Formats: sequence, structure tokens, C-alpha cells
Amino acid sequence: MANTGTPSLFCFLLVVVGVSVQQVDGVWPLPQQLDQSWDRYSLSPQLFSFTYGQDSAAQTGCSVLDAAFKRYFSIIFPDFTKGTENVLQSMWSEPQPFVVSVTVKTRGCDGYPNEDSDESYNLSVSEGQALLRSVSVWGALRGLESFSQLVYQNDYGAYFINKTEIVDFPRFAFRGLLLDTSRHYLPLHDILKTLSDVMRVIEHARMRGIRVVPEFDSPGHTQSWGKGQPGLLTPCYKGSVPSGSFGPVDPTVDTTYKFMESLLKEVNIMNMTAALNKTSIVWQDVFDYHERPRSKYVVEVWKQGCYLCEMRRVTKAGLKVILAAPFYLDLPIPTHSWPRYYNCFLLSQIPQDTVLEIWKGKNYKTELSRMTSAGHRVLLSAPWYINHISTGQDWRDSYAVQPQNFSGTDEQKKLVIGGEVAMWGEYVDATNLTPRLWPRACAAAERLWSNEEKTMNADVAFPRLTEFRCELLRRGIQAEPLFVGHCKHEYDGL
Amino acid sequence: MANTGTPSLFCFLLVVVGVSVQQVDGVWPLPQQLDQSWDRYSLSPQLFSFTYGQDSAAQTGCSVLDAAFKRYFSIIFPDFTKGTENVLQSMWSEPQPFVVSVTVKTRGCDGYPNEDSDESYNLSVSEGQALLRSVSVWGALRGLESFSQLVYQNDYGAYFINKTEIVDFPRFAFRGLLLDTSRHYLPLHDILKTLSDVMRVIEHARMRGIRVVPEFDSPGHTQSWGKGQPGLLTPCYKGSVPSGSFGPVDPTVDTTYKFMESLLKEVNIMNMTAALNKTSIVWQDVFDYHERPRSKYVVEVWKQGCYLCEMRRVTKAGLKVILAAPFYLDLPIPTHSWPRYYNCFLLSQIPQDTVLEIWKGKNYKTELSRMTSAGHRVLLSAPWYINHISTGQDWRDSYAVQPQNFSGTDEQKKLVIGGEVAMWGEYVDATNLTPRLWPRACAAAERLWSNEEKTMNADVAFPRLTEFRCELLRRGIQAEPLFVGHCKHEYDGL
Repeated sequence: MANTGTPSLFCFLLVVVGVSVQQVDGVWPLPQQLDQSWDRYSLSPQLFSFTYGQDSAAQTGCSVLDAAFKRYFSIIFPDFTKGTENVLQSMWSEPQPFVVSVTVKTRGCDGYPNEDSDESYNLSVSEGQALLRSVSVWGALRGLESFSQLVYQNDYGAYFINKTEIVDFPRFAFRGLLLDTSRHYLPLHDILKTLSDVMRVIEHARMRGIRVVPEFDSPGHTQSWGKGQPGLLTPCYKGSVPSGSFGPVDPTVDTTYKFMESLLKEVNIMNMTAALNKTSIVWQDVFDYHERPRSKYVVEVWKQGCYLCEMRRVTKAGLKVILAAPFYLDLPIPTHSWPRYYNCFLLSQIPQDTVLEIWKGKNYKTELSRMTSAGHRVLLSAPWYINHISTGQDWRDSYAVQPQNFSGTDEQKKLVIGGEVAMWGEYVDATNLTPRLWPRACAAAERLWSNEEKTMNADVAFPRLTEFRCELLRRGIQAEPLFVGHCKHEYDGL
Repeated sequence: MANTGTPSLFCFLLVVVGVSVQQVDGVWPLPQQLDQSWDRYSLSPQLFSFTYGQDSAAQTGCSVLDAAFKRYFSIIFPDFTKGTENVLQSMWSEPQPFVVSVTVKTRGCDGYPNEDSDESYNLSVSEGQALLRSVSVWGALRGLESFSQLVYQNDYGAYFINKTEIVDFPRFAFRGLLLDTSRHYLPLHDILKTLSDVMRVIEHARMRGIRVVPEFDSPGHTQSWGKGQPGLLTPCYKGSVPSGSFGPVDPTVDTTYKFMESLLKEVNIMNMTAALNKTSIVWQDVFDYHERPRSKYVVEVWKQGCYLCEMRRVTKAGLKVILAAPFYLDLPIPTHSWPRYYNCFLLSQIPQDTVLEIWKGKNYKTELSRMTSAGHRVLLSAPWYINHISTGQDWRDSYAVQPQNFSGTDEQKKLVIGGEVAMWGEYVDATNLTPRLWPRACAAAERLWSNEEKTMNADVAFPRLTEFRCELLRRGIQAEPLFVGHCKHEYDGL
């Protein structure tokens, strides 16, 4: 009655956890340079503090870092914070003071992180102190996260950190996670409350150095908009009679673009622009109509419009655009069947500041080549649709992705600015989001932050990720198991 | 950037929920006969009560039903119970008394359900009352569950039930769910606490008319036993040197059977026998050794033993056996290579009271034919390994299973006593068990309880299951979504 998927469990069972940790195997995602020694220092919550370095541009009052100091104190010393500290802890060694001194080079405590933010940091842990240096407050946040992961507890609950040197910076600037809030939840009567929630999310994210990028899909994925905006959608036909169903927003009428312009302006009015400097346009559905026309009428209507051309005008309102690729420019559709707007679909006509997101299919390497050869910056999402699930350790597939391993010049490779893990919501809501997301998203996180050569072996990563998943549980995050085993702090929310 | 899995969402979006419910679409699993009228009666928690019928063999003091009355009151009237009742509720109609009268034919309030328990019931809902009649208290529990699902609330929170007649009984007596508690959790220092937990689980289950059937896998899946019982397992060899790994329990030594006998006796000592009258023996691993011998030595050792023969003796201690099938009796292994115990592996030699569980492979129909033709009762589990996950609505596959659709006589079909949904634990623990289990297990539940002809269409079942999943959320069970949509009571545990 054994699970057929694990025949080798039988004779070759590996004990992957449960070994008493005397050192942290590594920070997740792995820093660019990490040197650890076996020398270790005891940490005592009573004598532990964060402080700002004398030369730091950020000092007490810096909202982002003041809050981070409090947050990470709780993360590092959960027992102390919860008042469940074990009395045996203090028997392990003489309590010594320990100070984490943070020095930030440039100001910017009240701003938002953006694609040009410098997230690098250096961290040096030695006796009695840790020196954390960064260019920006965002880099300091990354360093604090790494520091928090370096601290470990022995079986008696005593805290330790090893002598450590870290030099770290992200491989890619854009390391995204898509959460689909449209397919579940949101009772209508809660809309106003939701808008205020958006502001909370943005501020919450800012304090953690995270950008919130809202995605307004169009012209497809707009069925719900149609309910509140009569005339917005293209009617579908059954023969010559409207079928009652609707296609994407109607690209042939001016009202469509007026609506889109108001929508994007409203985002500005909500004062979210500083944080939200990208918006996405779903484009593939246009071409679905050509590939598999659902009604001849829709195809005809569609050919008469040029959604992208018009949207270029509308989005000049200051919002940059991430365009969901691929574009089926090589479709076997005769050019003469495309009217005057045809050329606006050509890749070369897309404004150079438009980032192209590659989301579809197994041939993403071909798309990476093609789009970067046209000079566009690209985001990779296709292999990281982790709403797609399967039995077993599918994080290994995510881990094996090489975003710059495609046919192209070095210049082309540089145009890969990052990637995005996608958790679409057809089968996901609050009941299963967290365990489905964590630790599976961690695989892409390491691919987007760390040195690829040092992190390509999933077998080497496995015990580190297993340990990090335990750390997530310790922080109260309902992360699902990678395989058989147990953690010191199990999830008890059942 | 749409999910590639749902291209048809575009033009053919169906609104599957959100329609104001004026009637309950159906109880899950569907009763054998269910007749509902549009006549409906208002229920008022203040004037609602459960009572025992005059002729009932069970009366006040019946532990199972007294507790069920309390439990179902809370389930039926959650707002009232939580004190969040809407004042508008009472404006809908004059409050009327409503009594659910339960009449049980036979006693047995303090016993445990077994495979011969009669779970049938009749339920008649009319003005002011519901009459629930059953042979046993277990049937009354099933009827109370159905009754609870018949009650619904309108948009203002008022409670209603429609005039209803139900005649119901289960299609199969054995409708199992396997929970794998071995691959995750259980720190050693909690063992004693765990043993007392087992008793709590059994009592909790009894009160709900559920049998707890512990599964002690052997001879395979015994690696952890080997850690506490030196000499129990068969050593693996690398050449002529022990490799340090171990195979299944060693069938060639008497100590193995002494250990198994003590183990099973201990289950008796724990006074669980009444509830726990089956135990499982994992058998396939024996044959794995022949199929893919990991070491010649093990194969040789194995051939000298006859685990099953010996276990027949040991399990005479009163425990019945569910044997995990298939047995590879038709293996292309020359008979002469099998020693004297060969014939005990023959299907015909397995005691007739041994239930065979078909757990492996896609050819389960062939196995059903073969094992029932040998006169054995069988349980079907192979198509219901729901720890295997995939993107989308895989409950439809579970729903399509037809346990009696195999080549065989009517007598053979009757030997199918039920099935078992399996949730093995390699990738499942407290973090993701509930959303992975519910509502996916519901599909098999309907196949095992309801009339197959009335419930074979998954499209017809979909809105009912969607509604039932909302009911699970309303009861605080973290059931994951079936598709896009929302429920009145969403899960807010995030």
C-alpha cells in the first residue's frame, strides 16, 4: 500500500533533517560570497541591539529601518519575544553584548524601491558585533534578512551566530511574484475597504523593500469590467445574432480608450504612482482570435482596430508598460488580411521602454533570443507558473531554469532584467495560497538573486531549502513540506 | 499573461456561484432518493429543537446522539451560536417551532460502528417537524448530516428548509480515508501523549460514526521500526559486505514474528480492538525484490521465508487483515526457484476472510476481476490516491471511477465492499493536509455512498460540489476552491 512514487524509500531512506545544527548551512537565496568559520558567538537577547553606524546617512527615525530592527528582533529571538525562553539557554555561556551596526550610504527612508535601486550590501560578523554596510536602505533590508538567517539555536534554545563575511548583490533587479487577486474573493460591498487595503499593502511592502506592481490585464481578461461598463466589450455572435457572450474590450470604439485612460488616471489619483510604475497589458488573447476564431464577426471587428497603437497614447500618462509576450507575429495569416494597423503589431514598433514579459510555452528560450535581439528588456515567467502543480518536488524544475541560457550576444543577455513567479488564482485562494507558494517559490528566488554557477545543483540545495522551510515554519509561515522529515518548530495551525 | 490552462475562460465565462440560493441543490453525497418541493419553512434557532421519538430505542443519555444534537445545532445555526445573528432575520416571517424527532430502532449508543452496521435512514421534512428514522444510531448520524445540509440561509441570514423526503443508505459499507501519520510530525518525546491522542481520535470518530482502522504496514515500510528493534530488518549487502542499509523485516527469523505478535497484542492492550478490527499488511515490497533485486543476498534470504504464512498465525489474535494487493503471482519467476513456502503465496491460499485492497496501477479492473473470482472481498483504492496532485479539477477523475465496472458475475460485483481514498504523506503535513483533502475527497465519497446512475455526470455535480465546498468553509474547514468564484463565508484564516 506504499506510495508508488517512492519505491526507493525502502532501502535507501535518507535522514535529511534532525541532525543537530551547529552552523547554518547557508542563507536562502545564497549570497554571492559567503565565508563562514566554525568560530561561533553566543547571542543573548537581553544584550542584543541594532544601531546605526556613525557615518550612516540613515539614522534613528528612518521609518524603514527602525521598523525592520523591531521586526527582525522578533524573528531572531522568537522565544524571548513570546516569553517562552528556556532557562537552560543562559547556562550555555556567559552573556555577551552584541551590536548590529547598520551604515547606509545614501538617504531615502521615505521613498519606494524601484528598478534602479541598489540592493547590495556587505555583512561582517565578528566577536560582539556585526557590521552591515549598504548603498541604500533596501540593501540594508536584504542584509538584515541574511543576518537573521545566520542566527541559530541549539537543542537547549541558546542562540548562536558564526563568524561570517558576506558580500552580496542580486543577479537580477526584477524578482517578481504574481498574486492573482481577481479570480477569488472580494465581495462587491468590500470594494471601498479594498482600495484602502491596497494602500496598506503598498506601505507594508515598502517597509520590506518590495515594489507592488498592479497588473491591469487588457484587452483580454476584462469580462468583469464589462459588467460595470456596458459597451466596453466586443459582443460575440452566433451566426448573425449576438450570442450574449462577450470577447475582449472592443478596440474599434473610442469609448474603450477613454475608459482605459480614466482607469489609469484613477491609479494616479490614488497616489500610487510612486510605488506602481508598471502595468501589464495582456495581449495574447488578440491573437487567440486569429488562431481559433470563435466567431467570424469578432475577427473582422478585431482587424479594424489597433489596440496597441491607441494604448501607447493612453499610457503616456507616466505609467511604464510590461507587455505580456509572445506576440504571434509569425502567424500564417496573409498580410493583406490585416488592415492599415498591421504594422503596429510588429515587434520593432513597440516602444523601447516597454518591458516584454515572456509567459507562455516551453519555447521561452526562442522568445528570449527574439525579443532581446530586438533590443527589448525582458522578464521571464514562463517556467515559473507555480500555480501549475504536480506530485513531488517540482521546485527542482524551477531551480533548473537558466534565464540567460539562450542563443544571443552578451548584450542581449544583459537585457534579461529578471523574472516573475506566477500564482494564478483559478484553483487558489486563502485556503491554499501559502502552502502552495512556500517553499516552492524559493527555488526561483535563488535563481533570480544568486550566482548561477554556485546554485545549479538541486541536490546540494535540498538540505538548505529543507532547513529554510523549517525557518519559515518558525516564523509562522504555513510552508508545505519538501519531503519526509520534521522540523523543530512544526506548524500547529491544524 | 493569462493562465494557459483556461483559454476558454475568455468568451464563455460561466457564473457558477453567487446566484441567490432559494433551495439546496442537493445533499453531498447524494441520497439514494431525494424529493424536494418548493414549499419552504422558516427555522428559528430559538424555537428549534432535537428530540427522541417515543418509540426510539435510543433516548436522552445516548452519548452519540446527545452530542450530535449539540454539534449539529451549532453547524445549522452558526450565527446564532456565535452571537452574530442578524436582526433582520426575524423580520422574514413569524417564528415557528420546529422539532427534529429521531427514532432509532436498535440500541447501541456506546458501541463502535463496524462493517455490518446498518447506516440507512429515512428523513421526512414537513411543516414544523422533521422525522428521522433509522435502524442504528449510525444511520441517525447520517440522517442528521443530511438534515444539516438541507438548511440554508437567505441574503439576510434567515434560515429555511424545504419540504423534503429522503430514503437513504450507502452503496458500499467501506468508505475509507487513509491519513498517513508516519511520514511527518511526531517528535519522539511526544510518544506518550500521542498514544493518549489515539484514544481521543477513536472516541472522536465513534461519536461521528466513523471507524478508525490503524494500518501497520509490513514487511515493507518498517525502516523506523528497525531503529528501535535491532535485528528486525533484513540487512542489505554490497557484494558480500553489509551495506549498512536495510530491507523489509527479516522473514527468516522467529524474532520477527514474536515482535509482530507483541505489536498486535499491544494494540489489544490499548483496548482499541473494538474499534480497530482491521490491520493492513503491505505486501508488494516482497515482490519488488524479485522484480528489481537490490542485492542478490536479500533475494536469497527472502525466498527462504514465508512471511504471509507466519503472519496468518500471528493475526489469529482476533485482528482481521486487509492485504494490500496486487500480488505478483504471475511473475515470470520459475517455480523451482521458490522454496517450500511457494504455495502460500498463491491467491487461493489466502484466508477467505482476508479483505484484499487494490492499491496499485491503472489495471485495477483486471485486479478486481481476478481477486473477486477467487472469492475475496475487495477494497478499491488505486484510482483514489489523492496525494497525487495535478493542476485543475482532478476531482473529476475520482468522480468517474466505477468500482463495479469490471468483467465478472453479479456475485463478484457484490464482493466489492467499498474503497479508500489515500492521502499519503511524503509531501503532506499539517500545513497543507486540509486544503488538499477537501473538497477533493468528496468525489469518492459520492461514488461510495450514492447511486451511480444518478451521479455519474461531473458537470451536473460541479455546482453541487461548489455549494458543498462553501458549506465546508462555513463550518470552518479550510477546503480549497474548485474554480473561480466566491462563497458567502470565505476562509479568513490567512
